[in-house]
Amino acid sequence: MTTLVTGIAELVTNDPGLGVVTDAALVVDDGRVAWVGPARGAPDADRRVDVGGRAVIPGFVDSHAHLVFAGDRAAEFEARMAGVPYDGGGIASTVAATRAASDDDLRTRLRALVAEMRAQGTTTVEIKSGYGLTVDDEARSLRLAREVTPETTFLGAHVVPPERDRADYLALVTGPMLAACAPHARWVDVFCEPASAHAFDGDEARAVLEAGRAAGLGLRVHANQLSAGPGVRLAVELGAASADHCTHLTDADVDALAGGTTVATLLPGVEFSTRSPYPDARRLLAAGVTVALATDCNPGSCFTSSMAFCLALAVREMRMTPAEALWSATAGGAAALRRTDIGHLAPGARADLAVIDAPSWRHLAYRPGVPLVRTLEV
Amino acid sequence: MTTLVTGIAELVTNDPGLGVVTDAALVVDDGRVAWVGPARGAPDADRRVDVGGRAVIPGFVDSHAHLVFAGDRAAEFEARMAGVPYDGGGIASTVAATRAASDDDLRTRLRALVAEMRAQGTTTVEIKSGYGLTVDDEARSLRLAREVTPETTFLGAHVVPPERDRADYLALVTGPMLAACAPHARWVDVFCEPASAHAFDGDEARAVLEAGRAAGLGLRVHANQLSAGPGVRLAVELGAASADHCTHLTDADVDALAGGTTVATLLPGVEFSTRSPYPDARRLLAAGVTVALATDCNPGSCFTSSMAFCLALAVREMRMTPAEALWSATAGGAAALRRTDIGHLAPGARADLAVIDAPSWRHLAYRPGVPLVRTLEV
Ligand SMILES: [Zn+2]
Ligand SMILES: [Zn+2]
Repeated sequence: MTTLVTGIAELVTNDPGLGVVTDAALVVDDGRVAWVGPARGAPDADRRVDVGGRAVIPGFVDSHAHLVFAGDRAAEFEARMAGVPYDGGGIASTVAATRAASDDDLRTRLRALVAEMRAQGTTTVEIKSGYGLTVDDEARSLRLAREVTPETTFLGAHVVPPERDRADYLALVTGPMLAACAPHARWVDVFCEPASAHAFDGDEARAVLEAGRAAGLGLRVHANQLSAGPGVRLAVELGAASADHCTHLTDADVDALAGGTTVATLLPGVEFSTRSPYPDARRLLAAGVTVALATDCNPGSCFTSSMAFCLALAVREMRMTPAEALWSATAGGAAALRRTDIGHLAPGARADLAVIDAPSWRHLAYRPGVPLVRTLEV
Repeated sequence: MTTLVTGIAELVTNDPGLGVVTDAALVVDDGRVAWVGPARGAPDADRRVDVGGRAVIPGFVDSHAHLVFAGDRAAEFEARMAGVPYDGGGIASTVAATRAASDDDLRTRLRALVAEMRAQGTTTVEIKSGYGLTVDDEARSLRLAREVTPETTFLGAHVVPPERDRADYLALVTGPMLAACAPHARWVDVFCEPASAHAFDGDEARAVLEAGRAAGLGLRVHANQLSAGPGVRLAVELGAASADHCTHLTDADVDALAGGTTVATLLPGVEFSTRSPYPDARRLLAAGVTVALATDCNPGSCFTSSMAFCLALAVREMRMTPAEALWSATAGGAAALRRTDIGHLAPGARADLAVIDAPSWRHLAYRPGVPLVRTLEV
């Protein structure tokens, strides 16, 4: 069964660069892109979908999200906007609510958020555990996440739960908890942040990552969010797929990223929602670092699910060009997940498509806050 | 025909303050609010609408928008994000496209934008002319705007069109153009900005406003956007309903607003989209000034139609509390339009309702960029 998508005023293929084709068409065969090109040369297909003169882009790849949780933290958000600084301490309240929730409650909330993302053009989302922080609750979180995405990440090392001794908890995370979680996870992650009493320092983070790697997991790191700690260099040294946040970087951090294979994933929604200074995207781009954009959707530091919003922030606040921001929100996210089948629309790629209710992809940053993007189901 | 709205987890009435009623119900009779209170005391009605445990607020009142135009200025936006400053000069390109467009083309675009706003919870929008700048094109713009809103504003004094002499154009705006436009307008407005070669100085603005008032129109002013010019004090002196932008204010401007009846309408989407410093909302609120929030939706300086986005910016960037921002986006907008029938939900008010896909109005700023709000049709 083949589908010909027509009426595409602009098609962003990310192949190469943004790879924009105007007045384009695209053929989908069994969920994969089979043909891309100018509409006048399009082959026949079994059925047609016309998008009415709109722009089509690869679906957003949101490579960093925390969607398995209960409760909300609107009150903490309001206190923060009134001046209370963010240090990750509020995570404990989500942990308590998550542990107390039933599987069905967690599943309902998770699926609602994934649907909300999909309605906004996100076709791949990575989902982390990290609000369970017991063997059973972490494993449960990953089992639920695996129901909706293959990109599941074990984040037992999110924070040290208030009731636990640090060393004991680290032994649990790298031992029995990892053993219970690895079957449900593709990745392991750690909140490496010496500046937070709740998170993990460089040595602790290394222990988590090395144990995860030994269990067959790929590596990701919450790095350098609140201070210029050791997270980024550790991520590069261990060959992590992504170092996320990258808000406070030294020259040595930038050099390490430029010389390695680790993507720098920027999460400007966090800086928006914590009223923090934004990462310096231009410095990373100038150094040749691969940059991804993601939401970090979570109930504490950033409860947006909108990749388009993050893209607009990247342009306004981090001085990425609209083209750089769109690439980073699609192909960049794919690179951060080490996926070659998503984030672009060359023949053979997954037919993960999003349509913009505008004639040009340029309207994404030009029209901030407007829900212009939706996933195109073909 | 009466309708009982049930399942309201939180109802914001703006009566008084935010006037939040939890576990609320509301009765609508012939388009007006007939009853508001706790659900357990609700009267019967002819039909029921259940919102499923969501929050309901008064529909947003967007008291400043420019929706009658053709063309777009995505390229100007990109150049600005790359460092080209905004001075209003790009308006001329929209004027050329608007003059060249057919009535049907303008109407189609206008209605699409109004529908886009309505889908995002905006139930009242003010619409300005200002991209015609000839007698016929301004009158046409207002005729089209009047088809979709009673809140129409004659803005012949948007900029001096490139082909016209300043003094001649001012005579046109205050004479034949005003005469042709006044029947289709409730308000007159002027872009008072001595810092822009394209806009109008204090004396010119006074002439426009006094002529408009003599023609029976209420007054509004684009004031102090690019510099601390005379616009705000002129607006207060002449009893204008609103001074819009208020980005650069002197102490005398704040004192004037505090002592007068003019609402300060802040348009943070403009500062977002022009990468400019934001107005100081706290200074205005501390002085007791009534503050409204609006989008300024237009193809040049700010092409957002999302009041929720502007509300999130007001909290993040102007340090309004979430409650202040919501009030200003609803009741504040009503005050800026001198309307007592909208912006609140006391019995007798218009039943202009918006529903938030969340249990609390607090999720509006807490979940930036997410399309949570829609107009509730009852
Ligand atoms: Zn995170
Ligand atoms: Zn305006």
